Amino acid sequence: MRAVKPVPLTEDGLIAAIADVVGAPSRPLRVGIGDDAAAWQPNAHHLALITTDLLIDGVHFRLSGSTPEALGRKALAENLSDIAAMGGSPMVVVIGLGMTATIDEPWIRGFYRGMSALASRSRCSIAGGDIVRASTLTIAITVVGEVRRTSMRLRSGAHAGDVAAVTGPLGMGAAGLRLLDAGTREGDAVQRYLSPEPRLAEGKFLGSRRAVNAMMDVSDGLSTDIGRMARASHVDAIVERERLVVHPSIARAGADPVDLILNGGDDYELLVAVDARAFPYVARTFQARFGRPLERVGRFEAGEGAAWIESGGRRESLPARGYDHLS
Amino acid sequence: MRAVKPVPLTEDGLIAAIADVVGAPSRPLRVGIGDDAAAWQPNAHHLALITTDLLIDGVHFRLSGSTPEALGRKALAENLSDIAAMGGSPMVVVIGLGMTATIDEPWIRGFYRGMSALASRSRCSIAGGDIVRASTLTIAITVVGEVRRTSMRLRSGAHAGDVAAVTGPLGMGAAGLRLLDAGTREGDAVQRYLSPEPRLAEGKFLGSRRAVNAMMDVSDGLSTDIGRMARASHVDAIVERERLVVHPSIARAGADPVDLILNGGDDYELLVAVDARAFPYVARTFQARFGRPLERVGRFEAGEGAAWIESGGRRESLPARGYDHLS
Repeated sequence: MRAVKPVPLTEDGLIAAIADVVGAPSRPLRVGIGDDAAAWQPNAHHLALITTDLLIDGVHFRLSGSTPEALGRKALAENLSDIAAMGGSPMVVVIGLGMTATIDEPWIRGFYRGMSALASRSRCSIAGGDIVRASTLTIAITVVGEVRRTSMRLRSGAHAGDVAAVTGPLGMGAAGLRLLDAGTREGDAVQRYLSPEPRLAEGKFLGSRRAVNAMMDVSDGLSTDIGRMARASHVDAIVERERLVVHPSIARAGADPVDLILNGGDDYELLVAVDARAFPYVARTFQARFGRPLERVGRFEAGEGAAWIESGGRRESLPARGYDHLS
Repeated sequence: MRAVKPVPLTEDGLIAAIADVVGAPSRPLRVGIGDDAAAWQPNAHHLALITTDLLIDGVHFRLSGSTPEALGRKALAENLSDIAAMGGSPMVVVIGLGMTATIDEPWIRGFYRGMSALASRSRCSIAGGDIVRASTLTIAITVVGEVRRTSMRLRSGAHAGDVAAVTGPLGMGAAGLRLLDAGTREGDAVQRYLSPEPRLAEGKFLGSRRAVNAMMDVSDGLSTDIGRMARASHVDAIVERERLVVHPSIARAGADPVDLILNGGDDYELLVAVDARAFPYVARTFQARFGRPLERVGRFEAGEGAAWIESGGRRESLPARGYDHLS
């Protein structure tokens, strides 16, 4: 264990240390960290996007099971995933950090370093934030992004007849968490849980295809999220159980793989509704660009916004058993 | 006491209730509450602004001493004050809410109602957020605004020779808190503490005057904030003690009024550095527009970024004894 040196923290001192770790912004800012607000010049040909998440120790993550770098990276990745799900690119991020008495300056530097590395790679700038005392470690992240007007995709655009597809294997996050709990520190699923990859390039690519009618991320589990897309689009969603791809690392997690896929959450893949006739072409170009398949998981049909699971030609209701932030 | 009916809360149900309370947005949004991110079209002739605050029960407010409406209103007001301090106008706000087991749907409706009323009046739109479970009530607010390029004012622009002035009496917030603690529920100071007014019109007005060289809000107390402006501007700040105006309601709070003014915080007035020759004209037009004085509190001189207080012709160092979010 690292000895914790009690560093007397002042707000202004800590802001200076963070500005130092964060370095020069990836996007040009007119005003960065340290004034009342940050300022930048948005691109006039795009729509601006905003998304926010509040993450609390013991509810959304476990401080004890994570390095500050990994925690910072993951917290930002979850928000970038929401920008990806709109077909957009991130521009600036602001972070509220509620720190407990056990958090010291090296921890905060690590946290910002993890976030800063992903921000740079995603071409967005850390523009400031707020640091306060709290009894529980609390992270509030807001990302502002932009999207070309014609590339924005909502969850409400699915049509009857569309194919439902995802940008990568589902259930990895939940399998990784189970494996971590059982003491496994390595493997694809653990890696995916600790360090999810926001599908920014995939979101931009899919948003720019006219045949893609709707898009969202599946962070709360397929059963919950495809139900949301169905309700928002006023069509029924049918998950085709025989098509669900079980990644080898999910099978090793010691739980029903289909349950992990449907209800696991923490995946951050994108779910799209694609015009059925164009789907083979979109999937082929996706494979060519990203080197992995755009996986069909089901379809949409005329209906009232219900979700179903179909297996062996029989159909059952698919209850939303994914992650509910309030349960 | 109102009987608390245990309402089973689901995330999607609560989002629907909030969308209902929030109503139609004041600014046209392309996408509002309920998708992965909100979307809007920024004005091309302006800079975009962003600011965020994290507020925690017991640290920044006391849940037990406040109605949900007042708490929502005040949380938003504090962020709007940061937009005002840049000379800007708010556009959209997103809210992260960490709710404890004692929070029910009526509470949340009240909280959003308070916020929504101020948002409407300030012409900004509540664009979404995140609601999670927490052991301590936690509020994370982010506001995105815009400012005409030529009207943006930073804290780093003060010149040697400038007059330091504020948009209203200081010490009111701290006096209000003391009076509340002593059981007083009424009066200007209590009202100002519970329901601070973001100085948006004043910020826009002052930002558009060429003679105004620097601007910030004084939310953490004059001694702390004028020191920050001095450091950022690489000039010395001198507070002129004889000029400090003691509002009658501050005098009633049972504490040294000058201490409340210098170190009290929670005021949300704007501090400006104004070219000395133009100050009388700026102050006159301010008085004509807002019906109250732009109060001179001191001046800036060539120096290394130190803060001083001058009284009876003698000068002493002015330590930053205002609110430090980490102490």
